[in-house]
Amino acid sequence: MWPDIRLLDLLDLEVPLVQAPMAGADSPALAAAVSSAGGLGSIGCALLSPEEIEAAARTIRERTNRPFNLNFFCHAEPDPDPDGARAWLARLGPYYAELEAEPPAGLAGGRAPFDEELCSLVEAVKPSVVSFHFGLPQDALLDRVKAAGCRILCSATTPEEAVWLEQQGVDAIVAQGAEAGGHRGVFAEDWRTGSGMIGTLSLVPQVVDAVDLPVIATGGIADGRTIAACLALGAAGVQIGTAYLFTPEAGVSDGHRAVLAGGRAADSQVTNVMTGRPARGLANRLMREVGPIAEDAPEFPLASPAAAPLRKAAEAKGSFDFTPLWAGQSVAMGRSMPAADLTRRLAEEAQDAIAQLSAARS
Amino acid sequence: MWPDIRLLDLLDLEVPLVQAPMAGADSPALAAAVSSAGGLGSIGCALLSPEEIEAAARTIRERTNRPFNLNFFCHAEPDPDPDGARAWLARLGPYYAELEAEPPAGLAGGRAPFDEELCSLVEAVKPSVVSFHFGLPQDALLDRVKAAGCRILCSATTPEEAVWLEQQGVDAIVAQGAEAGGHRGVFAEDWRTGSGMIGTLSLVPQVVDAVDLPVIATGGIADGRTIAACLALGAAGVQIGTAYLFTPEAGVSDGHRAVLAGGRAADSQVTNVMTGRPARGLANRLMREVGPIAEDAPEFPLASPAAAPLRKAAEAKGSFDFTPLWAGQSVAMGRSMPAADLTRRLAEEAQDAIAQLSAARS
Repeated sequence: MWPDIRLLDLLDLEVPLVQAPMAGADSPALAAAVSSAGGLGSIGCALLSPEEIEAAARTIRERTNRPFNLNFFCHAEPDPDPDGARAWLARLGPYYAELEAEPPAGLAGGRAPFDEELCSLVEAVKPSVVSFHFGLPQDALLDRVKAAGCRILCSATTPEEAVWLEQQGVDAIVAQGAEAGGHRGVFAEDWRTGSGMIGTLSLVPQVVDAVDLPVIATGGIADGRTIAACLALGAAGVQIGTAYLFTPEAGVSDGHRAVLAGGRAADSQVTNVMTGRPARGLANRLMREVGPIAEDAPEFPLASPAAAPLRKAAEAKGSFDFTPLWAGQSVAMGRSMPAADLTRRLAEEAQDAIAQLSAARS
Repeated sequence: MWPDIRLLDLLDLEVPLVQAPMAGADSPALAAAVSSAGGLGSIGCALLSPEEIEAAARTIRERTNRPFNLNFFCHAEPDPDPDGARAWLARLGPYYAELEAEPPAGLAGGRAPFDEELCSLVEAVKPSVVSFHFGLPQDALLDRVKAAGCRILCSATTPEEAVWLEQQGVDAIVAQGAEAGGHRGVFAEDWRTGSGMIGTLSLVPQVVDAVDLPVIATGGIADGRTIAACLALGAAGVQIGTAYLFTPEAGVSDGHRAVLAGGRAADSQVTNVMTGRPARGLANRLMREVGPIAEDAPEFPLASPAAAPLRKAAEAKGSFDFTPLWAGQSVAMGRSMPAADLTRRLAEEAQDAIAQLSAARS
């Protein structure tokens, strides 16, 4: 049925579809539904406490005995920059005033990278799959995750990043094309030059040629045509995020969902003003007026605590002007249906697209 | 043999491959070779005089009786901005000094848009196909090109641009993904936000769904896998630029060719410092040190006469530090072979990729 079964074998899947981890917008219900339908459900753990991660894994396991994936960020924590933080908070000052929101006293927190505590949690929970973003954790932690029996995935945005990941012993590469919603996984290139922004159509075959591992394509995939295209490029499977935001299981509010439903491809822009790292989402007011790219935005994740009070105050008034509306460039192809149905539909459509492509030859 | 024969019928082709017009880097020999092999050869006319365009068409016709394409730019000429020009020339001052190059007295010229004179030339030459970039010429000129019997193509970078082009009566849409080398065709979006930078994998199906016309995918296409992927996305054909730069027929010097041969995907960046409009090429020194995006670069095409003396002086010393090295993100997939051979090879590889994709099903 599928041209490359390596990923199915590696991760024990029935269909080569991974639901992308989407910290803050996925849910145990979403992951369980996708895994139940034969794909790989994922939980983005970057915004969760260890207790919440454990609870999410428990909820998934109550609903399915299929494999699932826990995803972690592996960024380096930035050096403190109190002057930069003060300047950024001053720049956002008019927004705090307008929204009557309390600016933070300084910038700290945001998101913690994968560390000793999270590694111990992974060893206890033993998910079938662990995926990393922004590179890999230090060797000692990575070895412990491997020893726990987890299959390891990591995002690459260039062929060179993929080769490095293969050398570190990951099991499969997530080739993240520039179309993808959410944070760019770039870790070895200067994202400000656009070097980590290679389109899926170009990136996937180059990664396939550069490594021996199975490659999971991500970025812009939302229907059977785009899945079939990625398989034609040599991918063994695909990872799909934005399309799952339209399922009832996704952890997004009705208002947020309505904004996503009106999103055009051209509205999906890469910004660093929401968190400090480049991430793709529908343009909101902060991105339009201060970004989408601001040279003076604090380093990741420190732009996040600056924006958070604005989001909270605006959402309390029913506005999504300051909400990160992470979404890829195929956002307008989204369809509202339950996640298990969507998973099966995508697999069927991909089979149909392959059949249609080859019909002219027979 | 091909899943969609509309483009073959429309343009009288044997294979659904268009050689991208590449002003300054294509050649009559290249266009003739591609057309002879059953594809559509193209000449980018933006840097040619009417006499040179006429001579190019004559040369092609001496070599083949197959269809070919003349391509023109349709930008609006910018308002004069002597202060901005002075400031930009001052910013580039150290480079003129270092290279002992003469800065221009002011900024004028660069590239002329499609106009009355070029329209008369098209009416006289009557190429089978005329393609436009940066939108369309004014209605009266467009009507004359149609009346001359030319099929009309135009680039779109968003589904909305494609719909507008269909309403104006073009015959096929070139859906230009963000991977593509050379100038972004964006004409209805603010390119500075990244709105006209939709990846090929995401753009093509959205354009296919938005219009009834045949869609020609471009951006990142360099081998059979990428062609098959675009056909899976619903494209009726593909346009390929960078891959043809590695043919002996391409109008690039040996030194330029050697730089291209060493290009990585991550080195292919979008810049406005070479001409004033966003265009994708391998990072050169001017892009690295002044760009890749400079807020104060003159409007297209006025950054071009500022950079031209630097290029000339540097190339005289054997350096490509100031040369526009236009190339898409699949530059590293380029293979050196004659253009007719490459055209046939690409068509065969695409057929093989489709066969391989569908083999698992039978």
